[in-house]
Amino acid sequence: MSVIEDLTRSLGEAVVLTGDRIAERHRSDASLTGRSLPKAVLRPASVAEVAAALRICDGHRQSVVPQGGMTGLAGGANPAACDIVISMERLSGIEEIDAAAATMTVLAGTPLEVAQRAAEDAGFLLPIDLGARGSCQIGGNLATNAGGIRVIRNGVARDNVLGIEVVLADGTVVSSLNKMIKNNTGYDLRQFFIGSEGTLGIITRAVLRLRPLPAGRLTALCALDSYADVVALLKRAQRALSGLSAFEAMWESYFRFNCEAEGRQFFETSPAFAAIIEQDSRGQDGEREQFEAFLGQALEDGLIGDALVAQSEKEAQAFWRVREGHAMDRLLPSLVNLDLSLPIGDIGRFAEECGRALSARFPPAHVSFFGHVGDSNLHIAFSVPDAAQETAHQVDAIVYPLVAAYDGSISAEHGIGTLKRDFLDHSRSEAELDVMRRIKHALDPNGILNPGKVLR
Amino acid sequence: MSVIEDLTRSLGEAVVLTGDRIAERHRSDASLTGRSLPKAVLRPASVAEVAAALRICDGHRQSVVPQGGMTGLAGGANPAACDIVISMERLSGIEEIDAAAATMTVLAGTPLEVAQRAAEDAGFLLPIDLGARGSCQIGGNLATNAGGIRVIRNGVARDNVLGIEVVLADGTVVSSLNKMIKNNTGYDLRQFFIGSEGTLGIITRAVLRLRPLPAGRLTALCALDSYADVVALLKRAQRALSGLSAFEAMWESYFRFNCEAEGRQFFETSPAFAAIIEQDSRGQDGEREQFEAFLGQALEDGLIGDALVAQSEKEAQAFWRVREGHAMDRLLPSLVNLDLSLPIGDIGRFAEECGRALSARFPPAHVSFFGHVGDSNLHIAFSVPDAAQETAHQVDAIVYPLVAAYDGSISAEHGIGTLKRDFLDHSRSEAELDVMRRIKHALDPNGILNPGKVLR
Repeated sequence: MSVIEDLTRSLGEAVVLTGDRIAERHRSDASLTGRSLPKAVLRPASVAEVAAALRICDGHRQSVVPQGGMTGLAGGANPAACDIVISMERLSGIEEIDAAAATMTVLAGTPLEVAQRAAEDAGFLLPIDLGARGSCQIGGNLATNAGGIRVIRNGVARDNVLGIEVVLADGTVVSSLNKMIKNNTGYDLRQFFIGSEGTLGIITRAVLRLRPLPAGRLTALCALDSYADVVALLKRAQRALSGLSAFEAMWESYFRFNCEAEGRQFFETSPAFAAIIEQDSRGQDGEREQFEAFLGQALEDGLIGDALVAQSEKEAQAFWRVREGHAMDRLLPSLVNLDLSLPIGDIGRFAEECGRALSARFPPAHVSFFGHVGDSNLHIAFSVPDAAQETAHQVDAIVYPLVAAYDGSISAEHGIGTLKRDFLDHSRSEAELDVMRRIKHALDPNGILNPGKVLR
Repeated sequence: MSVIEDLTRSLGEAVVLTGDRIAERHRSDASLTGRSLPKAVLRPASVAEVAAALRICDGHRQSVVPQGGMTGLAGGANPAACDIVISMERLSGIEEIDAAAATMTVLAGTPLEVAQRAAEDAGFLLPIDLGARGSCQIGGNLATNAGGIRVIRNGVARDNVLGIEVVLADGTVVSSLNKMIKNNTGYDLRQFFIGSEGTLGIITRAVLRLRPLPAGRLTALCALDSYADVVALLKRAQRALSGLSAFEAMWESYFRFNCEAEGRQFFETSPAFAAIIEQDSRGQDGEREQFEAFLGQALEDGLIGDALVAQSEKEAQAFWRVREGHAMDRLLPSLVNLDLSLPIGDIGRFAEECGRALSARFPPAHVSFFGHVGDSNLHIAFSVPDAAQETAHQVDAIVYPLVAAYDGSISAEHGIGTLKRDFLDHSRSEAELDVMRRIKHALDPNGILNPGKVLR
């Protein structure tokens, strides 16, 4: 019996889609690099169905690609024509919010924004947040250990997961739905699966940690003269602002490009660096005054050249629109967004050196830098008009060796997938890769789970 | 050639101690349950020596027990007579503090307090903190994923480690000394080794995350009527106090015992519950007033019956002395300190039920409860006069099944070691244990590393 027949007999035709019933959206994640539709798409509606599907596929040595909201940027959810996709979209819903424990138990296919709203309705903040919140799913957020803009306060996805349920390649359901903040009973199984990009198991449920919902936010946009000043301001903000929830830096060309595109002029002259500082508010008296006093002192000390404090939610959003760079889309389809991590003190020097190298090789290119500097995370926006197909590879070949020379990471938050896989040795030693291969073989001996992703 | 001869030829007699040269301190950790001295103690002074030692031991299929400061409470560092101990005490020292990245690179044998002081001297807080700070070592703190009293603000040991270097059983050095907060380049190898109690590899170096040093601390002792009020106060403190750094609860019998022993009377009558609330101060105006206003409101709302705000560091220390329970030592040697974790909302009911069960079985026993309630962590102090040797086992046999019934954890922060190993299935399913065994076999196929600890 073929694997498709076996799956159909066990799960039914409603779950097993083939041929014309396979939707186009299963071809590629948001990197748009996927080329093939899979030979089948499974749409399980229960953990038992996920387990049955994997057990059958493992028996047939059939490769399986898990898919969430398809918002990844590293090709991690792209199938080959010989793969079977397991789409998590029907395994969706919030199962419990425990107000005393401050936890949410949720199915993996739940869209992030749905989970965020449910948390807010219960008076909590779900701190995982990223631009793709409307379509990305919790399972994918955990499988890629998603980052985002508020990591400086509450950490990456990994730091907000208390418990996890996973189906292994052989169909074993490993349920580790812990609700406790401290739990030292043996190896921390959560950690093995979070960030493993679907190569070690398929996440089916999670217990997420909730935080107090801030009463509001205070947001400032600052103009600075140098990267050294950016780091000094970050340090000072971390000391003085106990509710610091975001610290974002934009290099001159990025800030100017986006201000012009949005038709905004925040400062008289375009500063060498712009930074957004955001603080959670507790709704107490004097918070805004303290925030403004902090900025006033930085101004007086010459650390910043100018600062604007948002007087309304709308003004704060105007700052964030520039940072989020929606206007960069006009550089599509040639736009490349690199996602790097470097020791915070070295980011300024790295950006200079990297910008010079890219501009030398591609003189007409747009190259600009921005990032979650407080989390050591730098993004590069790169675009050349009429780019050839191999341009992205040439950019990688310039940037990644430089990242390695700075002891940086070639992926801060996007993951490895297929697009960065062949560069993984720029950030990981052979000994590290060998440990990863040993773990992979221990948990997926037949190699059916998302083959070719992360590891070759 | 015997393993001892092989080791001595390779490492020299200064590193390889046998016979009378083995000190008594290598017999047992602080649980005092270790019975044997090992057949040799190795004292490597470099990572290369650790690697050489493991390579030789692995070749001889010689079991190895890593030892740090011997302050563990689960028997995890106790050797058998046939084991060889690797003591990390000579692999000590701070290698770098990177102020821009806010990181410290440290050798595993460095005492925690030495690392804490070095961080303070550089203007930072190293958030890992526990009572044994004077003698415990960083490597041991990470191997056991240490908790402590300030987890509510900065997390457990795991959350404060950015990079790690480990020697595997076969002597391979895996160096993953990342300094970045975000790094999604493949599996997160740190996480495999942190909390694995020396069974997967020996930690030799770490990059620790530093935080801003608080300007001071505000501390209050509150009297409450019920556990429901304790949880309500915790929730309110988490919302209102952005610098909340500790939230500790004491049940009536624990609070009364320790107040009496210390000769202190904080409240007119002994309250059903006492809680310590501590907030980091940023040295800004109005912080004390806000803290007092928070307590005043809780008092007005009837959530607390009374509250004392420490007016000096000395007063704060007096609150903490009661919580730390130094006076409990007079119940030694029969004192048992259980370390459990339960969903925060269930801790009150659990403590009632557990207290009843223990008092029914041991009518003359002292049974009292206290803990890091904000981290879901409950401790039980238990003591019977003239306890028989098997009493501890009888206590375990009463408490752990009840923990399992509440979906709790039999170890919040002490780890499993040998003392909780045979109860691990009360908190972990067979599927979870099977994944642990697979990982163990993948990284230590000959089973030489700390055999019999964590897993049977």
